[in-house]
Formats: sequence, structure tokens, C-alpha cells
Amino acid sequence: MPVSHQGNAVTNAVTIVSESVCEQVMGRQDAFTAIENVFAAMAKKDACNFPVVREAIGHADAIYGFKSGFDREGKVLGLKSGGYWPGNTRLNLTNHQSTIVLFDPDTGRLKSLVGGNYLTALRTAASSAVSIAHLARKDSKVLGMVGAGHQSTFQLRAALEQRNFEKVVAWNLHPESLPVLAAVCEALSVPFEAVNRKALCAQSDVIITITSAFEALLDSDWVKPGTHIACMGTDTPGKQEVDPRLFARAKVFTDEVVQSITLGEAQHAMAGGIIKETDIVPIGDVINNARPGRTNDEDITLFDGTGVGLQDLAVASVAAELAVSENLALVLDLD
Amino acid sequence: MPVSHQGNAVTNAVTIVSESVCEQVMGRQDAFTAIENVFAAMAKKDACNFPVVREAIGHADAIYGFKSGFDREGKVLGLKSGGYWPGNTRLNLTNHQSTIVLFDPDTGRLKSLVGGNYLTALRTAASSAVSIAHLARKDSKVLGMVGAGHQSTFQLRAALEQRNFEKVVAWNLHPESLPVLAAVCEALSVPFEAVNRKALCAQSDVIITITSAFEALLDSDWVKPGTHIACMGTDTPGKQEVDPRLFARAKVFTDEVVQSITLGEAQHAMAGGIIKETDIVPIGDVINNARPGRTNDEDITLFDGTGVGLQDLAVASVAAELAVSENLALVLDLD
Repeated sequence: MPVSHQGNAVTNAVTIVSESVCEQVMGRQDAFTAIENVFAAMAKKDACNFPVVREAIGHADAIYGFKSGFDREGKVLGLKSGGYWPGNTRLNLTNHQSTIVLFDPDTGRLKSLVGGNYLTALRTAASSAVSIAHLARKDSKVLGMVGAGHQSTFQLRAALEQRNFEKVVAWNLHPESLPVLAAVCEALSVPFEAVNRKALCAQSDVIITITSAFEALLDSDWVKPGTHIACMGTDTPGKQEVDPRLFARAKVFTDEVVQSITLGEAQHAMAGGIIKETDIVPIGDVINNARPGRTNDEDITLFDGTGVGLQDLAVASVAAELAVSENLALVLDLD
Repeated sequence: MPVSHQGNAVTNAVTIVSESVCEQVMGRQDAFTAIENVFAAMAKKDACNFPVVREAIGHADAIYGFKSGFDREGKVLGLKSGGYWPGNTRLNLTNHQSTIVLFDPDTGRLKSLVGGNYLTALRTAASSAVSIAHLARKDSKVLGMVGAGHQSTFQLRAALEQRNFEKVVAWNLHPESLPVLAAVCEALSVPFEAVNRKALCAQSDVIITITSAFEALLDSDWVKPGTHIACMGTDTPGKQEVDPRLFARAKVFTDEVVQSITLGEAQHAMAGGIIKETDIVPIGDVINNARPGRTNDEDITLFDGTGVGLQDLAVASVAAELAVSENLALVLDLD
């Protein structure tokens, strides 16, 4: 089995990209571009996600499964496999474990194996960042963060790059976690304030919710006109972050409509008859200038970020290319 | 990224096992034992297959997807990904391309990446061999092969090890392919004869069908009492190898009942009302001595081998263990 660190040294080369190499080569701007492109391709039906497999395996309380898809335009085929292992904390490992596997769409042969933990965080952050870039008011000054877990700092950093934010306000169920967000703000010299939820809504021009809540954390009445809100936490039936009545006031956008209404934040507004499926616009249509996004400074825009396999494939494909071009990938022959 | 050929040299090691190492370490007996064990675990509900993803990707006429599952008893979790690329023949590549990915069920971390092409052939052959071992008459003397494609020689070699066969008879739609089977028989000093289908049934004690036919190749009336027949080709709605009336005469066994009635050979007998789902016995129940197999020398036993993900995971897990113990695996750190 010949092993090489040169991209072209072996026939039928499989590129292996470790977590640490992903962190080294892949930046927020790379992820932003990859996610923007794949949302655009999805809206044009040039890329599609396949059915999600998700199983409680009956061992270690784990949820295991995979998301997969094919981007015909970008020629990216593959899957992200992994899941949630609640006992990992005790082992000093991340609870969410992911690996991304890419195949050559011309031959079906394995192409790349890419660590998926860092990339999942990066692509989820890029998703709300893309929504801010396309939907938030240009003059947005205050960013509100609801949630202060592992993923929240990724969302914060990506969001701060989209507008000239002058302040960050934040709330978390466990206030003792808020210093992780404060530290990011301090490093970037952005003022930070811990506030209650009502004050957060009153101050914020852009809100990101990134929690694992199972009931509404934000009342619709608290959210002021002109706000852009990216709901990033709800990815399962039963989870919920905001008052479903907000959907009646907002223009609603999502990564994938089918997921939005079944397992995303929109599930509750759908169940309550507050919105119809056709009220939800794929953000790719906005990126493609096929449908309007925000039309005035009073619009509330809501992005329901559910997370699709094509996002994972998109960032993994770019990471693998960068790793090969920088001679940081391990290239081997699986024949 | 530390690379090592030693099994224990790196923390969080990922084991990479190439196609050629699989061929080197993995034998028919290893595959037989792995498949027998996993069929037994499936019947005891200690192992379960997850929903199959199968998609026409709209590129290169390819069918892509994956089969996955978890064997709680064997602690094997993962998936086989890949598909069918009809244009590969022109590129001198196998049309079927598979890769098996195993995860640590305790943590969700990637454990092994194993080439799946050779192992798929080996596990499919082991499946019919297990059926012969448990269901064919002990005094079976003549083996009939229907089909002479790439997979047929694997089935033939594994079958010949299960009984003291004195002769092989064979038929194929394209007779010019029959020499591949004749060559195996010559190498093993077993007499070989090309025959027509009716004569094949009249002579054979055991029949294996391994074709991609879409209509019955064998008439029920041709099959003599006491025959064991393993139908291994039908793995998709619409495919068919034998007269559905044979299901009325036979005791019917399968790897997985749900697949048997929907995409296996039994789909046609089910559609015709010839059998009910409860007439089909998981072969694992026979292996576990939980239900009877053949009860006399006049029984016709029919095994509907549909192919499940757990078979792939089982052989890949053994191949990875053998490769590590023989220092033939590439071990690397994906952190």
C-alpha cells in the first residue's frame, strides 16, 4: 500500500484529511463561499440531499446516522456519518462525532476521507452567516446570541464578519457559560453584555439562537421590526427555540424546506397552522436573485437553519482540495 | 499526522485496509463464520440493519447508496457505501464500487476504512454457502450453477466446500461465459458440464442462481424434491430468477424477511398471494436451532439471499482485525 504526501503520486488516490489539517487549511471565508454556493445549487435543483438515516442504536445512548447527497454542479458526492454519544464528555471527547466520506461521481470510487467535527461547526456557522449576509439590514449594529455552548463561538465569529456590529448581547440558560462568548468579543474588541431575553430582543438587530431547547425561549412580541433572526438549534422533531407566532410576522427562509417543516424550527408554526409550506423560501433562491429576501427595513426575516448533508460535503470537498494543494493531505491507494 | 503500520502505535487509531490486503488476509472460512454469526445475531434481534439509502444520482447513470447497521453482540457499527457505475467497464474498473466504514460503538469515532469490492463478493458467496451448510441434504452430489458472471465463481468455490459434490452443471444466458466456471472446477478437479436449464434442475441436488434476470429462468416443475436452491441474484424490485410457484412447494428461508418480500426473490410469490410473510423463516433461526430447517430428504428448501449491510460490516470487521494482527493495516490518526 504505497503512501505519499504528494497529491498525484498514486493512482486511484484516496485523500485523508485529519481534523487538525482541516483546522489548519479551512477558514471561515472558505466555508462561507462553499455554503453559499451549495445553497444556490440546491435551489436550482443542481444539488440534492438524499434521505437522512438516524437511529437510536440501543448502545451507549447513542444516536447514529448519516446525511448524504450529490451536488451535480460541484461534482461532490458523499455522506457525513456519525452521531451523538452523550457519554463522550466523560472520555474528554466531543459528544458529536462526524466523518465525511467523498466519492468520485464518475466512477463511485472512494475519493476523500475527511474529519467532520471541526467542519460541522464551521459549516453550521457559515449557514447563519450566509443568512445574515443576504437577509439582515446593512446597518445592523447589535448582535444577540441565544445559547453559549460549544457551537455558539463559531456562530459568533462568523456572524461578526457579516456586518459592522458594535455590540454583542447574549443570554444562556446557564449563565456560567457566557464567558466563552465574552472572550471571543474581547479578542475582537467588540463590547459584550449579558442580558435577559427580553432585553436581548429589544437591543438586537440580528439574533442567532443556537441551543438544544425544547420550548420557545423568545416571545414573538419581544422581537422588534427589522430584526433578522437565525434559528440554528432545532434539528429534531420536538426541539423549539422561538414562539411560533413569530412566523406570522416574519418572512421565513430556510436551507431546505422539507427539513424546515418536519424537524426544523418551522415544525411548530406548521403544526399550529400559522404558516404553509409555500410560505417558506429556500435561501438559495435569494442568493440566486430568483426570489426577494428582505424588502424594507421593517421586515422581520427568519432563517430556519436545519443543516443538510450537502453542507458537509461542500466544506469537506474544499478542505480536501486545500489540504492536497498545501501538501498536508495523506494520499494513499486503497486498491 | 503520524502514520504507522503498527496496530497500537497511535492514539485514536483509524485502521485502513486496502482491497489487496483484504484479499491477502480474508479467506472463505473467515467469511463463512462471520456471516453465520451475524445471521444468528439478526434472528435474535441482537443485530439490526438500518434503512437502505439508494438513489439514482442523475450522473453517469449511477445508482449510489448505502447499507448500514449495528451488531450489538459483535459490537460492529458502520455502513457500506457505494453503488453501480455502468460506465466503469470502459475504464477497466469494477461496475460495483464499495467502501466499508466502521465506527467505535462506544464513542462514535471512526475505527476502520476497508475496501469493499472483494469483501462484497466474499460475503455474498458466504451467504449461499451458509444456506447450503444448514439446509441442503448431507448427501448432495451435484451442484447446479445458473449464471456465470463475476460473482458466480465466488459462489461456486464457497459452495463446493459445503458438501462432497461430485459434479457441477451450469447454464448461462451467454454460454461464452461458462468457461470461467469450468476453470474453477478444473482447478479443483470437479467434473463440469454445460447443460440446459431443465437438465440442470433434473441433475442438481443444490442450485445457486446468481444472475441479474428480470424474469423466471427456472420452471417450478423442473425442480426435483430434495433440492436446495439459493436465489442470490434478486436484490431489486422487478428482478426475478425462479418461477414463483416454486415458493408453494418449498420451505422458504432468507437473510432478512423485510427485504425478501420487498426486493428479494419472494417479492413475486408475495404479489401473487402464493406465500405470506410469516411463511418465510430467517435463516438465523435455523442456525440458532430456534426453528426447523430441512425436515426430510423430500423437502425443497429455498434460500432468498437479498444481501444486508450487516454482512458487509461483519466481514470488514474481521478483515480489519486480521490485517492489524498481521501488521498489514495502515494505522493513522484522524485527529
